[in-house]
Amino acid sequence: MKREIYLETTPLNEATEKWLKRLEAQGFLKPFTGEKVRVMESLGRITAEPAIARLSSPFYHSSAMDGYAVKYQETFGASETSPQKIRLIEQTVYVDTGDPMPDGFNAVIMIEDVNVYGNYIEITEPATPWQNVRVIGEDIVATELILPENHRIRPVDIGAMLTGGYVDINVRRKPKVVIIPTGTEIVEPGTNLKKGDIIEYNSRVLGSLVSEWGGEAVRFRIVPDNLDELKDAILEAHKVGDMVVINAGASSGSEDFTSRVISETGEVILHGVSIKPGKPVIIGVVKNKPILGIPGYPVSAFITFNLFAKPVIYRWQGIEMEPPEVLRASLSRQVASNLGQEEFLRVKIGKVRDKFIATPVSRGAGVLMSLVRADGFVRIPAMSEGIGAGSEVNVELLRTKNEIENTIVCIGSHDNALDLLANSLKKKYPGLSLSSAHAGSMGGLMALKKREAHIAGTHLLDEETGAYNVSSIKRLLSGRRIILVNLIYREQGLLVLKGNPKNIKGFEDLTREDVVFINRQAGAGTRLLTDKHLRELRIKPEDVKGYEREEYTHMGVASAVLTGISDTGLAILASAKALGLDFIPVAKERYDLAVPFEFYDTDMIRALLSIIREDNEFREMVANLGGYDVSDMGKVMYDG
Amino acid sequence: MKREIYLETTPLNEATEKWLKRLEAQGFLKPFTGEKVRVMESLGRITAEPAIARLSSPFYHSSAMDGYAVKYQETFGASETSPQKIRLIEQTVYVDTGDPMPDGFNAVIMIEDVNVYGNYIEITEPATPWQNVRVIGEDIVATELILPENHRIRPVDIGAMLTGGYVDINVRRKPKVVIIPTGTEIVEPGTNLKKGDIIEYNSRVLGSLVSEWGGEAVRFRIVPDNLDELKDAILEAHKVGDMVVINAGASSGSEDFTSRVISETGEVILHGVSIKPGKPVIIGVVKNKPILGIPGYPVSAFITFNLFAKPVIYRWQGIEMEPPEVLRASLSRQVASNLGQEEFLRVKIGKVRDKFIATPVSRGAGVLMSLVRADGFVRIPAMSEGIGAGSEVNVELLRTKNEIENTIVCIGSHDNALDLLANSLKKKYPGLSLSSAHAGSMGGLMALKKREAHIAGTHLLDEETGAYNVSSIKRLLSGRRIILVNLIYREQGLLVLKGNPKNIKGFEDLTREDVVFINRQAGAGTRLLTDKHLRELRIKPEDVKGYEREEYTHMGVASAVLTGISDTGLAILASAKALGLDFIPVAKERYDLAVPFEFYDTDMIRALLSIIREDNEFREMVANLGGYDVSDMGKVMYDG
Repeated sequence: MKREIYLETTPLNEATEKWLKRLEAQGFLKPFTGEKVRVMESLGRITAEPAIARLSSPFYHSSAMDGYAVKYQETFGASETSPQKIRLIEQTVYVDTGDPMPDGFNAVIMIEDVNVYGNYIEITEPATPWQNVRVIGEDIVATELILPENHRIRPVDIGAMLTGGYVDINVRRKPKVVIIPTGTEIVEPGTNLKKGDIIEYNSRVLGSLVSEWGGEAVRFRIVPDNLDELKDAILEAHKVGDMVVINAGASSGSEDFTSRVISETGEVILHGVSIKPGKPVIIGVVKNKPILGIPGYPVSAFITFNLFAKPVIYRWQGIEMEPPEVLRASLSRQVASNLGQEEFLRVKIGKVRDKFIATPVSRGAGVLMSLVRADGFVRIPAMSEGIGAGSEVNVELLRTKNEIENTIVCIGSHDNALDLLANSLKKKYPGLSLSSAHAGSMGGLMALKKREAHIAGTHLLDEETGAYNVSSIKRLLSGRRIILVNLIYREQGLLVLKGNPKNIKGFEDLTREDVVFINRQAGAGTRLLTDKHLRELRIKPEDVKGYEREEYTHMGVASAVLTGISDTGLAILASAKALGLDFIPVAKERYDLAVPFEFYDTDMIRALLSIIREDNEFREMVANLGGYDVSDMGKVMYDG
Repeated sequence: MKREIYLETTPLNEATEKWLKRLEAQGFLKPFTGEKVRVMESLGRITAEPAIARLSSPFYHSSAMDGYAVKYQETFGASETSPQKIRLIEQTVYVDTGDPMPDGFNAVIMIEDVNVYGNYIEITEPATPWQNVRVIGEDIVATELILPENHRIRPVDIGAMLTGGYVDINVRRKPKVVIIPTGTEIVEPGTNLKKGDIIEYNSRVLGSLVSEWGGEAVRFRIVPDNLDELKDAILEAHKVGDMVVINAGASSGSEDFTSRVISETGEVILHGVSIKPGKPVIIGVVKNKPILGIPGYPVSAFITFNLFAKPVIYRWQGIEMEPPEVLRASLSRQVASNLGQEEFLRVKIGKVRDKFIATPVSRGAGVLMSLVRADGFVRIPAMSEGIGAGSEVNVELLRTKNEIENTIVCIGSHDNALDLLANSLKKKYPGLSLSSAHAGSMGGLMALKKREAHIAGTHLLDEETGAYNVSSIKRLLSGRRIILVNLIYREQGLLVLKGNPKNIKGFEDLTREDVVFINRQAGAGTRLLTDKHLRELRIKPEDVKGYEREEYTHMGVASAVLTGISDTGLAILASAKALGLDFIPVAKERYDLAVPFEFYDTDMIRALLSIIREDNEFREMVANLGGYDVSDMGKVMYDG
């Protein structure tokens, strides 16, 4: 069997142009004709015809006030010194706001400005013609343009159309996108899982994007990797939808039929675009409709769907895509990138003092959480080999600038209590967020030094004094006033599989031939703790198998042990509990938040500290994680 | 009967604080408890619980590539010069991307990097541990926080929850707002209208706002101005909804029961806030729920609903309102404002060169089109008596900055063809808008001079030369290169009621005792035309009844004639046709667009000119308006 291993790699702008030009040339990009909907149900839809007023509003002269309709000619000469009498029956008619003007009357005197007597009223000022009268067409004149074609209908537009005489309005039919999930291994959420199963969720992400863009998604049944079944599904989808999307089977593996099926039912315009992630995307046409083969990795799926489906869905509705909001930010660390590939780097952004700092998150195409956590994308051009630390970059935002500005950036040592803190903060202060990046205790203090974070989580033991954090702060952040607020005391220990099958008792067992260790990255407090114990036991790192393999979080260590990558590693009790591992206690340590004085009294940090100090629910949840001592939670341990 | 004429006038911030504090004190502002929805249907909903991963993703080690699973220990020593043989059956297993790793295997070699022979593969590089393997938890580790509480669910969040083991999720119940339209005079859209009827549309505008804010609107039947019926409706609404909204009856007219009904069924917290428009708003509580009496004028309704309902609906969902986008702009003309009232001034904004110019639109509370057309609000503080021309102001945007930047600002003489031009532009270039303000020909040229507009519509006849526009441009815009592009020639004439009941034959009839004229504002080309004719006939303005009453548009003149405010006025044939009036021709005149050279070759203006020059549909629609000669449409008449 011939294997198509290398895909084409067309540059992105070329691919997009080819795609849109081809669809345009075949007449597949024209805005859809309209469908009639009730105006009152047209919110968010796009007009397919101009709304031209059929009625004036108001369509009769009406009083703009509660008061007395008069003929202005009969009010001449009224003044403070010689008030004028107007006879109630013959010369005036009482009107409420909105009442039609009685025939022949042409001004209204406000009720506040008259004195009412038996059968007349008295006024002290003449009326001017048409005063306090809403004349015909004051709001809308019949035949004037209320809304142009291709306009997204807002609440006020609904009002204007209704009062302009519209009951129904032609709006663009919603583009219908059929999404076909393929793969023998994928299963519906909620299925009883077995090894090898993959929960299908891409179609729900893509379908939700279609909704957000104004279209309607139809999700087909899951189709196994079978050429004929997939062909049938495509032909069926073609009947139902305006666009067919196949996910996945777009890369070049032996079970990836998508490209073949598309070329056998229609035509592959392009297979492979020089982007990362998202390279194996397929664009094509089947009969008179566009078809997309979207890669299976979630980040690739998200990016390629945005690049190739979104513009088409917008064109069908006759509207232009809003450009993404772009923020200038400074990249916190160097990023290398492949020449010849345009990379969509996900970044988190923090506003520290007046500067926006962008920090790259995971670059894996399979890491959906990188999108969940990201604040935006930095595009690294194909001709670039990377971006230096401190460079100014444009970030295409996924969250609003306001949300970013209201995010507390915590960099430093990882602790599970930070997840709970993030949740409690959002619960009590919905306008605020806590974003924590795991760079180790030392990394956190360095981030404070470089002014890339508001706070840092740290548990650095000074072996000489036995005190935590203070000496490191003095060394790294000399001249700055830093306040150490205790979060917790926690137990660190060696994690092992349930039942401790290898009978590990302590660090002394790490030199055993049959024991593989998993380490933490340099600069992590836990790494220093490991090294301290090895030093005390006079064990050389090269005698510990796995010493060179590093994880960045406690949960990463726990996961490595659970899954058999390693036999043991040093981490906190909470992580062992979370994954059902056994725990051999090694030390109890203090974990503080280091807060520079300049941020200590800001609204954001005060809110955060109020959670730590006063929120009993938070305190309880942390205690329940296990292995935590919360007795000093919120206490200032150092200020200098 | 005692009449409650004067409302309280509480300052806005005091009123808002009183409202929210009161609701909070009574426990009415707590976020709603959750309701379970399917994750795949949770887009846009707000989490009522944190989503904490129940499963790791992946939940087994899986291959990240198509290739061969190996034990990395068995690949030691492989190199370019001494390739290593790996036996196919015993030492490797072929895996596709996503396949689970076979037990005991711990690395994958990409298919591109091996040579396959009969029963072995050859590799030229050793494998590193776990290379090309997605290890358990690479994306999500069980127990980690996927989403906090009070988070608005986005497409990617749906994917993360599904792969994290969620099928259902608790989200905030949607706040239900019952809107009761009241008023004996209001009727449903589509009703056969008679004088005095008002088409009910406020409830649809308010209901759409509720939808946009994440709530659910329930619109009750229209309730006539009857105390008992309104009481019953409120009590019924109270059972159904979380908030009751009555529209209108909030001002102090004789038929305005709202305040009374609220105090008889519950409590009026406040009636009257010092804002304009929106002063007569009522806030209150009925039993344990908030109730609002929203004024009837559409702009008042929109503003007060935003001020008092929106924050409550957001609090119930546990989320914070996004602050409005604010733009700094320069006010194009002076605005006086009442001391003691905070005014919400609607403005249109144009970006001319690098400067944003804000121009006030109609300030009437009854002019819904002022909201449809507005780009934003300028808040004039209660302690201010107004804002001077040229002042920098903050505009709270109703459209995006991008939309504003892509809007062509046309100021000048009004012509119905401009409505059609706006529509055709949007139809062909959905990303562009044409905003036209009617300030007369002279006003248009002045706007170009002050750099407040991109183009100006002008029809200024030089009586000496008989030429149009050129001499005015030379006088007003000396030193600047201006290009005159013809839009149309059009007929101006006197409008009279169908059948010409007063038998008006020309300007000579304007001195008649029984004829009332309607004029155009100073600076309008049509005003100059009027004055020219009066001068030629030696008629003095003071001998023309109504000469001092000015309208700003042709349609305004037509409307005044149709509705009997005046007997005749000078305007274009199209306006007569639109309202079914008779037309006594007076002159044919040239109407040009004046375009400063600096804008002539910009993308926006090129797009506009392409419509004028090449769009046959536009040309035909203009011709069909009647009274237009389009033979020179798009032609350059002058460049200098």
